[in-house]
Amino acid sequence: MEIKTVAIVGVGLLGGSLGAALQARRIARKVVGIGRRDASLRVAMQRGLIHEATTDPAAGVAEADLVVMCTPVGRFATLLEAIAPALRAGAVVTDVGSTKARVVEDARRILPNPRRFVGSHPIAGSERRGPEHADANLFEGGLCLITPAETTDPAAIEMVRRLWTAVGMRVRTIGPREHDAVLARTSHLPHLAAAAMVDLLSAEQEQFVGPGFLDTTRIAAGDVEMWADICEANAPAIAEALDQMIVRLTEVSNGLKQGQPQGVKQLLERAQTRRKAMNRPS
Amino acid sequence: MEIKTVAIVGVGLLGGSLGAALQARRIARKVVGIGRRDASLRVAMQRGLIHEATTDPAAGVAEADLVVMCTPVGRFATLLEAIAPALRAGAVVTDVGSTKARVVEDARRILPNPRRFVGSHPIAGSERRGPEHADANLFEGGLCLITPAETTDPAAIEMVRRLWTAVGMRVRTIGPREHDAVLARTSHLPHLAAAAMVDLLSAEQEQFVGPGFLDTTRIAAGDVEMWADICEANAPAIAEALDQMIVRLTEVSNGLKQGQPQGVKQLLERAQTRRKAMNRPS
Repeated sequence: MEIKTVAIVGVGLLGGSLGAALQARRIARKVVGIGRRDASLRVAMQRGLIHEATTDPAAGVAEADLVVMCTPVGRFATLLEAIAPALRAGAVVTDVGSTKARVVEDARRILPNPRRFVGSHPIAGSERRGPEHADANLFEGGLCLITPAETTDPAAIEMVRRLWTAVGMRVRTIGPREHDAVLARTSHLPHLAAAAMVDLLSAEQEQFVGPGFLDTTRIAAGDVEMWADICEANAPAIAEALDQMIVRLTEVSNGLKQGQPQGVKQLLERAQTRRKAMNRPS
Repeated sequence: MEIKTVAIVGVGLLGGSLGAALQARRIARKVVGIGRRDASLRVAMQRGLIHEATTDPAAGVAEADLVVMCTPVGRFATLLEAIAPALRAGAVVTDVGSTKARVVEDARRILPNPRRFVGSHPIAGSERRGPEHADANLFEGGLCLITPAETTDPAAIEMVRRLWTAVGMRVRTIGPREHDAVLARTSHLPHLAAAAMVDLLSAEQEQFVGPGFLDTTRIAAGDVEMWADICEANAPAIAEALDQMIVRLTEVSNGLKQGQPQGVKQLLERAQTRRKAMNRPS
């Protein structure tokens, strides 16, 4: 696979890592980075993550065969509006956003040729941020979910599928709403639960945290803007997952108060079996 | 520090690691392992974690200057009753249990000389179990909380403090009830939340878990008997922590349903700042 020009909108951890991977694996001949801040773009240039840099989204995408949106999802609509008039006729647009229903809807509404948009969610990353932590192998071995619509151009789907495969990912197709319901449970709820558990500790109690607490709450150190955007974009599905969690925790609390810990033990047994199974190499 | 004979009651991950550390650092001349199952004791002998093995608790502690209870806390009362008549007059007894109020009360009620009992909680371990995973460096760099009472013999406190210091831990003193309230928030609630999040996933949704979910729920793979015991022994404090968590998650859910994500963003900001600070080396 070789793409002539790829434009990356937002050169942070994911965008920068994608730029590095595209070059390391010779997937793209030219990578253009589009950003808001000169300082970040300079880091990306110095680290060789991108070949060209600009703060002008329309100018940045003008030559691109493929545009990858790598900003927080809250900025997608504004940026799609900025690039829409400048896109080449055949350009394919994709993204790396952690929620998909709203993004797919924004693309359908704003882009001149929505059939060439394919939503993507590469499940990769860390609590670090910025192009200084970019890593050409960040995507290696991970899972990428793509969310094409029925009307999406099969050639665009194929290009996006090959892009993520080329940087080392397994690719699966899923509907945008189903994606958001799944991610509410596998990612957004765990993030909010981790944040709540950190927030519940007093300064005194915080001195006693051990390795289990640090593992469980590691994700709470993640980028606030990105996570606030995710919570807003996927609010209904996250609220549903939270409500199910609340029901479960209430059952546990009542069992403990009533001196009936059998239900708690059964929960621990089910969770242990399933969590151990997740450690198996996929 | 050198102790002539140490008896370890329960030669699993923690007990086995303690045996290994006592020998590697020349803290004890003789380590006697007491267990229920011949198979585990054989592994511990073969790996050199203990010098002698027995399934008879009274016989095992007869010569001991120090006895360390390393079984799940649910078995403490029965085992303390079994060893009480056989303890040497000056023997010091401690433990590695994750809850302290009930253990301290059991010791006060059962032991012939409760002034020589000092509750300990070395915050170390992993989701693995059994003497086959024992590691002489498991305690290195960790925090050990000790919970002496006002009536506890200062010489016993000093012996236990030096034991944990000698295997590489920082030692802090805390009251048994305060310990249990802190651990409910830093350890027991996170464990139950992790178990609940695993349990909420359907088999279909489970296929989409990423590194964040795996970090957040790693502890849910831990030993069920140990955790069920902890939940029972510390039920009131855990129920209180769960109820506070439920209140917090309900606020988040309501904020999302009402299209008012400001509170969610503030929670994410507070949690990010505090969680990042926990990454600093202590």
